[in-house]
Amino acid sequence: MSPFEKKISDACEVANSLVCVGLDPDIDRLPAHLKSKTDGVYEFNREIIENTADLVSAYKLNLAFFEVMGSKGYEILERTLRIIPEGVVVIGDCKRGDMGNSARMYARAIFEHFNFDIATVNPYQGLDAVQPFLDYKNHGVFILCLTSNETAREFQYLSVNGNTLYLEVARAAQSWNALGNAGLVVGATQAEALSGIREVAPNMPLLIPGVGAQGGDLETVIQEGTDSNGRGLLINSSRDILYASTGLDFAEAARQATIELRDKINKLIP
Amino acid sequence: MSPFEKKISDACEVANSLVCVGLDPDIDRLPAHLKSKTDGVYEFNREIIENTADLVSAYKLNLAFFEVMGSKGYEILERTLRIIPEGVVVIGDCKRGDMGNSARMYARAIFEHFNFDIATVNPYQGLDAVQPFLDYKNHGVFILCLTSNETAREFQYLSVNGNTLYLEVARAAQSWNALGNAGLVVGATQAEALSGIREVAPNMPLLIPGVGAQGGDLETVIQEGTDSNGRGLLINSSRDILYASTGLDFAEAARQATIELRDKINKLIP
Repeated sequence: MSPFEKKISDACEVANSLVCVGLDPDIDRLPAHLKSKTDGVYEFNREIIENTADLVSAYKLNLAFFEVMGSKGYEILERTLRIIPEGVVVIGDCKRGDMGNSARMYARAIFEHFNFDIATVNPYQGLDAVQPFLDYKNHGVFILCLTSNETAREFQYLSVNGNTLYLEVARAAQSWNALGNAGLVVGATQAEALSGIREVAPNMPLLIPGVGAQGGDLETVIQEGTDSNGRGLLINSSRDILYASTGLDFAEAARQATIELRDKINKLIP
Repeated sequence: MSPFEKKISDACEVANSLVCVGLDPDIDRLPAHLKSKTDGVYEFNREIIENTADLVSAYKLNLAFFEVMGSKGYEILERTLRIIPEGVVVIGDCKRGDMGNSARMYARAIFEHFNFDIATVNPYQGLDAVQPFLDYKNHGVFILCLTSNETAREFQYLSVNGNTLYLEVARAAQSWNALGNAGLVVGATQAEALSGIREVAPNMPLLIPGVGAQGGDLETVIQEGTDSNGRGLLINSSRDILYASTGLDFAEAARQATIELRDKINKLIP
């Protein structure tokens, strides 16, 4: 087992949970009592983490929600990362995709500066865009394969080599995975595609966004997506957890929503 | 003419230049006298801008080179943007590609927080990833079409619908361009593909990286890439200009390298 696979596997074991909480603090949706505070976003993150860390295998931080505040947002990102407990997998959902020197700088930012365990990466530029991330053997990469949005079909379902583009991406990712530190992003709204992806990449960890607000099909996700050990999946929910309540009790409500999702998933694992 | 097209066209007219300088300050390659300074990257940017601003139509700032320094880097990015003179096009080379709320946050970061004129965007997730940027009618988007790296071929040249994927992307971009604020990124190393791209997208501005260190073919780029007015192109050079000298005279050397590239391009315009 690679360090990447072991880190995910251990985190799922310890928490007995496949839940990944998407820590995407939307400045427009913070509870009223935090909205007015200059450090409201950090306080929000801190309370969410304190109330959910024992229930999750991973946190996924989408950098968009920090970048929107510029340097101040990145400073909050840096401080947030410091308070996530050891052992929980920390995913930098940055969807970076660049080449050469720029790709190396991004990898260095995500893995060295921020010290994320895993980055999400876009495959459109081919291996050049992914290799600088894969070179970090103690870290890992989730490569965008089939995304959960409506227009994913526009290119990802195009027919290439008698196949679909997303399956070509899965096949390529499998061939890039010499160090065992690659995984795939597959949207839960595309659950019917999981069996095909599992044929191409039987053992790669999968990051599955889109089960909550986006309405993905959890049952099919688990049936088709888990590996032979009933593991190999991180199932992400963001808004359903973060904004389960918008009042003073938001963190307690987030905890309840996380417990519900964890238990729902665990009941579905064969 | 849309505000995006007019901004590019005016900037090219005023400077009589199609040159875009890639302001990618590599912390490992700063001149020795700046490397040791805490604010060395900002000082580097400032001197480059002061010595080249009258010669260029645009600056392209690749966010990777700032993100690698985290919040401190973004603070330098914010200050750098403030000293770029009015009229010069400022491109946020971020290659973002996300969906829904995340894409909207990225667009807000790039266009509202940083106030870039233009963003580069990755098309892999389809229109959902691009629309939030296109919605800013006074700003514009360069969509990755055919990139200059070696493994670009891996997916971008795949045959789809009896065509190549990158041409499908160009065709899609053309259909998304209701507000006239979309353009394409085409690597100079792929100059032979430009005539095909121009058939699909005859009037879209093109951002052309890869003429310098990457060795793209400038003559073909201009022959095949310019629109009917000998315009419609921003030709980017980064390393050849920024590191023309690594001594105390780096800014003067950058100025000379920019003049040379500008004149070389202008001679090639029919």
